[in-house]
Amino acid sequence: MQTKFLLDEKDIPTHWYNVVADMPNRPYPPLGPDGKPLPPEAMLAIFPGNLLEQEMSGDRWIPIPDPVREIYRLWRPSPLVRAHRLEQVLGTPARIYFKYEGVSPAGSHKPNSAVPQAYFNKVAGINRLTTETGAGQWGSSLALAAQMFGMEARVYMVKVSYHQKPFRRSMMQTWGAEVFPSPSELTQAGRRILAEDPDNPGSLGIAISEAVEEAASRKDTNYTLGSVLNHVLLHQTVIGQEAKKQFELAGDYPDMIFAPCGGGCNLAGISFPFFADKLAGDKRAQNLRIVAVEPASCPTLTKGVYAYDFGDASGYTPLMKMYTLGHDFMPPGIHAGGLRYHGDAPLISQLVHERFYEAIAVHQVATFEAGVTFARAEGIIAAPESCHAIRACIDEALRCKETGEPKVLLFNLSGHGHFDMASYDKYFAGELEDYEYPEEAVHAALERLPKVAA
Amino acid sequence: MQTKFLLDEKDIPTHWYNVVADMPNRPYPPLGPDGKPLPPEAMLAIFPGNLLEQEMSGDRWIPIPDPVREIYRLWRPSPLVRAHRLEQVLGTPARIYFKYEGVSPAGSHKPNSAVPQAYFNKVAGINRLTTETGAGQWGSSLALAAQMFGMEARVYMVKVSYHQKPFRRSMMQTWGAEVFPSPSELTQAGRRILAEDPDNPGSLGIAISEAVEEAASRKDTNYTLGSVLNHVLLHQTVIGQEAKKQFELAGDYPDMIFAPCGGGCNLAGISFPFFADKLAGDKRAQNLRIVAVEPASCPTLTKGVYAYDFGDASGYTPLMKMYTLGHDFMPPGIHAGGLRYHGDAPLISQLVHERFYEAIAVHQVATFEAGVTFARAEGIIAAPESCHAIRACIDEALRCKETGEPKVLLFNLSGHGHFDMASYDKYFAGELEDYEYPEEAVHAALERLPKVAA
Repeated sequence: MQTKFLLDEKDIPTHWYNVVADMPNRPYPPLGPDGKPLPPEAMLAIFPGNLLEQEMSGDRWIPIPDPVREIYRLWRPSPLVRAHRLEQVLGTPARIYFKYEGVSPAGSHKPNSAVPQAYFNKVAGINRLTTETGAGQWGSSLALAAQMFGMEARVYMVKVSYHQKPFRRSMMQTWGAEVFPSPSELTQAGRRILAEDPDNPGSLGIAISEAVEEAASRKDTNYTLGSVLNHVLLHQTVIGQEAKKQFELAGDYPDMIFAPCGGGCNLAGISFPFFADKLAGDKRAQNLRIVAVEPASCPTLTKGVYAYDFGDASGYTPLMKMYTLGHDFMPPGIHAGGLRYHGDAPLISQLVHERFYEAIAVHQVATFEAGVTFARAEGIIAAPESCHAIRACIDEALRCKETGEPKVLLFNLSGHGHFDMASYDKYFAGELEDYEYPEEAVHAALERLPKVAA
Repeated sequence: MQTKFLLDEKDIPTHWYNVVADMPNRPYPPLGPDGKPLPPEAMLAIFPGNLLEQEMSGDRWIPIPDPVREIYRLWRPSPLVRAHRLEQVLGTPARIYFKYEGVSPAGSHKPNSAVPQAYFNKVAGINRLTTETGAGQWGSSLALAAQMFGMEARVYMVKVSYHQKPFRRSMMQTWGAEVFPSPSELTQAGRRILAEDPDNPGSLGIAISEAVEEAASRKDTNYTLGSVLNHVLLHQTVIGQEAKKQFELAGDYPDMIFAPCGGGCNLAGISFPFFADKLAGDKRAQNLRIVAVEPASCPTLTKGVYAYDFGDASGYTPLMKMYTLGHDFMPPGIHAGGLRYHGDAPLISQLVHERFYEAIAVHQVATFEAGVTFARAEGIIAAPESCHAIRACIDEALRCKETGEPKVLLFNLSGHGHFDMASYDKYFAGELEDYEYPEEAVHAALERLPKVAA
């Protein structure tokens, strides 16, 4: 029985797919501090014009430059795998597939956007980049990408992850990047937070503030973001485009797609090309369900509000219409660091709000339990973020077992867990906690939402 | 320019290639404690009959059972990659290729033999396995393989590696294995060594003694070995068979093959199928050079003696004719734990002794330097063991730059370094040492070689 569905390098997509061209409703624009739509030029201090064009574009297809495809060749196309052994272990009639993005040198889907972001900055004359990272997946991807184009990179890494995952830092340094724990003393934003709370464990929102502040204050330096923005989601659509071709090889088509959802980019990457089928009236996609899987401890889509909010903790970014728990909400220190974000991509938020996409929240211990089941069946040890999708997919496969439905389930195995073994250790030692939904903290954070006419 | 040469699952080899059938001279038999050739039955206490048959076989091709190929499908065929970017960085006219075995769930070539060893034990009615591991690559592969066939596994891990690489242990536990630092209190061999030296850092030789002792003393338990023996080298030939097909796709053929050499199995795996071409008079292979790359601190092939010696520290194993530094030689605690072995596979030793294969030794710091150059060019962070092959290949590519020769160089990238980042950290911190050849220790150990008529 065929297990892996592989493509040739010539099958690496030549264009990114821009869902904005096909969305039933137009996206809400980002707003400036005055509450008025932000002109793209306002962001030129931290982004190059070519990426801002992509950010605002309504074109359906955006060409992938050859130098970017050359780097993609180092690991793409990634495999689509039929999880025969997992199906057997579960005893499910469902057919389970996963797209494995852990084959990239950085170990996740993140280089799919890091590489073009570095490239477009390079051609715009920028040679130095800053960014934030949570679990380290994005930071290491940006370090890799910067190195590929001979650029400098500085990474602000959420402090709790910096200490949980020292080897992600080593990896970034191997690729030549500088790494600092955030909040740091290097920026006003960091110093302000440390003055209030020297033990602050950090958050993606804070790290973004630091990286943005540095980029805004230096002419030679731009900022890069690992998720949330339209152009980041755009770049990730190579995943879903490949997966569609691979499903043709398999002679199959998914009924449900699951992806972990922190900022939203890996969910967007795997699902937008299939969602396009649905919007285009493709019969196979008629009943397609797309499910964002988020942590119960940072339940942006399932318990947040849909409102304009800042992308970072300090209010440096434009206001974006998204599901949010409040920009200064401090999520618990769960082990899926990549999912500790107060907001969500505006495009994903809108699709959830308009009921095209679904969202569910799962608890931490259950995600590791699913990860161990998966590792023992399929060999691969998944990143804690990816374990969220595995959990949801296994739960659906078990429902299929009850009902006898042979559903086709696809999940995005967004990364491996080789740098997350300390978390697996805690799981085995029974030391992992399930955090309750932090109702009061969210309530307080939502009180501080910026006042904007929605 | 094509980067990866990929094969389909149907191209996974159907047979292992047994070099014994084609070697110019027959291998020397293993000897018993009495100095007489050992009857295979003598090893039935720790190995199943089906694997012993492979160990003694002179058949050229040995079929790979379907259940083994089913597991191979989880990651095989592995990619052959043209290192365009490394060539550019070096400015060499050489064409550099690497076979990337780090795509297996355990991150190295080791599951190629762990899976069949578990399988053949399973069909022989054994449900529990012991083994040793140095860097953890073999132990995690055996843990994975045992899990795939629903068997128990206990791993004795060399103590220095156990502490250098705690996450290799976590990985083994994720796949359900028990792991103990060696020397341990669990065996006579371990207790004896700890009594003499409570701080003994362990060695592969000691860990083998412990795992063999336990297997020999329990009827339900067999022993598995990660390298050295004929059947282990045999299983690894899937690497070279695939690489040959991939070179056909590339329209190329190697002039030189480099592989790290500890016990010898990954070198055997990549090179035997090409060596068969040379023995068969294939014109392309006429001048093929095959190079074993070992650490200067444990220079078995380059400074050892070719003699009958034990495979383990305590003298439990049969005597094997091989290059050895003495079975109780204690190699320095270098970071390429998989290369800290006093001996070498008898088949590899014989081919080196008879001048069919070459051997060189490289220093530790230079291997990490090569690994960083490679990571910055090709993205992949290599295991310290693999960095030995990279070092030798880069040195040859730089010689080609001087001479202008467009040689075709192939190396076996036997594993990734995701569990070796602490070693990279030490390299960056300037804390890595180059150990001199430990002449006196080797001399003393060689004095203790068993007296056998050679």
